Amino acid sequence: MDGMDIGDLAERILKGERRALARAITLVESGRADHRAAARELLEKLRGAGREALRIGLSGTPGVGKSTFIEAFGMMLTAQGLKVAVLAVDPSSARSGGSILGDKTRMERLSRDPNAFIRPSPAQSQLGGVARRTREAIGLCEAAGFDVILIETVGVGQSETVVAEMSDLFLLLLAPAGGDELQGVKRGIMETADIILINKADGDLKATATRTCADYAGALRLLRKRPQDPQGFPKALTVSALEEEGLQKAWDEMQALTEWRRETGHFAARRAGQARFWFESEVREGLLARLRREPVKGAMTALAHQVEEGGISAAAAADELLETYLGETPGA
Amino acid sequence: MDGMDIGDLAERILKGERRALARAITLVESGRADHRAAARELLEKLRGAGREALRIGLSGTPGVGKSTFIEAFGMMLTAQGLKVAVLAVDPSSARSGGSILGDKTRMERLSRDPNAFIRPSPAQSQLGGVARRTREAIGLCEAAGFDVILIETVGVGQSETVVAEMSDLFLLLLAPAGGDELQGVKRGIMETADIILINKADGDLKATATRTCADYAGALRLLRKRPQDPQGFPKALTVSALEEEGLQKAWDEMQALTEWRRETGHFAARRAGQARFWFESEVREGLLARLRREPVKGAMTALAHQVEEGGISAAAAADELLETYLGETPGA
Repeated sequence: MDGMDIGDLAERILKGERRALARAITLVESGRADHRAAARELLEKLRGAGREALRIGLSGTPGVGKSTFIEAFGMMLTAQGLKVAVLAVDPSSARSGGSILGDKTRMERLSRDPNAFIRPSPAQSQLGGVARRTREAIGLCEAAGFDVILIETVGVGQSETVVAEMSDLFLLLLAPAGGDELQGVKRGIMETADIILINKADGDLKATATRTCADYAGALRLLRKRPQDPQGFPKALTVSALEEEGLQKAWDEMQALTEWRRETGHFAARRAGQARFWFESEVREGLLARLRREPVKGAMTALAHQVEEGGISAAAAADELLETYLGETPGA
Repeated sequence: MDGMDIGDLAERILKGERRALARAITLVESGRADHRAAARELLEKLRGAGREALRIGLSGTPGVGKSTFIEAFGMMLTAQGLKVAVLAVDPSSARSGGSILGDKTRMERLSRDPNAFIRPSPAQSQLGGVARRTREAIGLCEAAGFDVILIETVGVGQSETVVAEMSDLFLLLLAPAGGDELQGVKRGIMETADIILINKADGDLKATATRTCADYAGALRLLRKRPQDPQGFPKALTVSALEEEGLQKAWDEMQALTEWRRETGHFAARRAGQARFWFESEVREGLLARLRREPVKGAMTALAHQVEEGGISAAAAADELLETYLGETPGA
């Protein structure tokens, strides 16, 4: 990583070299200050290059067949000549000791496909950090000429929201289930989804999948209509990743929705809004980052002790810290 | 409010003058810079004065009889010679056009009681701002010599957590209900509650209330034991605010729990932890506040437009803002 030529790396990414892309993602995942600076330089060089990929967010809890779906769906797209990247956002990966995609053997065929690129979630527990790195990885994948970028998450805590905020389309993958379990899906996620896919519509579960799909279609109709949806969206569909059924239909729907959003300006508006949101997040994060660096960090710990012991009020201690170390005039 | 003598105001608060207390709370609720400075001065003058009140957080959704409970419970305490303050934390009050306590006639007797002080939630929508002002109001009530401070919330969004973070004890007030409705209480709140009170244990609902109480007692036993609880806590009790039944029993339990926590050091440890948390929140809030002030605010808006239009990347724009206006060296 060290002594790396950023100009050379950028060129190799633009040529679509997967090793260069992997190296660049490792760079953006690094927390080291010199790596951050190099990553910024690289991203700036690549900005606006490559193509505008379709960014598809995909959420599904363990057991719904997410890996099987991504593999089957990804293989179908590469067979159509598309280049597919798969990124994972998994804030829990640090704790669980490995990302959902850590074991690439779970997508053995897709990982060997020359038109596919699979990248596990970085081993970090902070969602904010994972979000930034994933956004940057998206930029790198676009520079490398990928047509479709699948960003997958297990939907732990806020991770679905984070993924939705960096996607053009958001898919929710569910398993067939009895009517009672429908309420298990968080309302917020229902409202975020563009297409709900009921997987495992095969064998014994086929009938249940069809019923589950109808249940969700009904539930989706009860939601308030969103301006970014044409007639009939969001919608629920059945798929069988195992038997590779319904995947083309799902892709057709994704394309139809994307086409409509492009024509009506919703696609561009969503990206603009996301860029603005990201900028504001970066500013807030950059500002708060200095609380974790010396000399502020040490002063904050010392003041916190005084506050705990009652030697100074919380407000006065905060004023003192802001004034002394952070250039703030209290009450100003 | 203007031209006010802070030293005089402090003295009158220390004498327990309710008008002075009300005026001081209005001062801490003000967003004006000169009022903030005066509030800080006042709070600093009063720090450590007065008595250490028992701060009781109380959450209950509309319809559980919260006002009736507070009135009956408060009247019982004042009859025992205690001074009782009631503060409300209601982040939705700005929208709903009035706090839950805005209509003091709902606690007509208590509001006329010379040993009681009732203060509605400030008309602000931001929970962070309400939290700070409520914490400061607690300090003022303690300086004014109140023995018990009830901090009530309707439990919208995160408001229960906010109230729990400033309370010594946290009560959850519930209405009698069928077993199915038990799951409606958020698990996080169950885990925060020290005592669950099933209100309306009177008339036709008495049997249901007893059953509901048993259900919750069972649910509480399933939760992991917390170090800050003696044997038998958290517990569920029935009360009837209407018939003023069970209130003394509930108060006895609160006192027993408080006594145990004082003796074991948990009471002081909780306050110390809360003070630390508050200090850290104030620092973060103070830091983020400058993003809402000129010239940073204007520069941020301008850069956000550029980011939306693709003229600059979100990360580069954030760096530029931090470097130019906020004294930050990117990547440092």
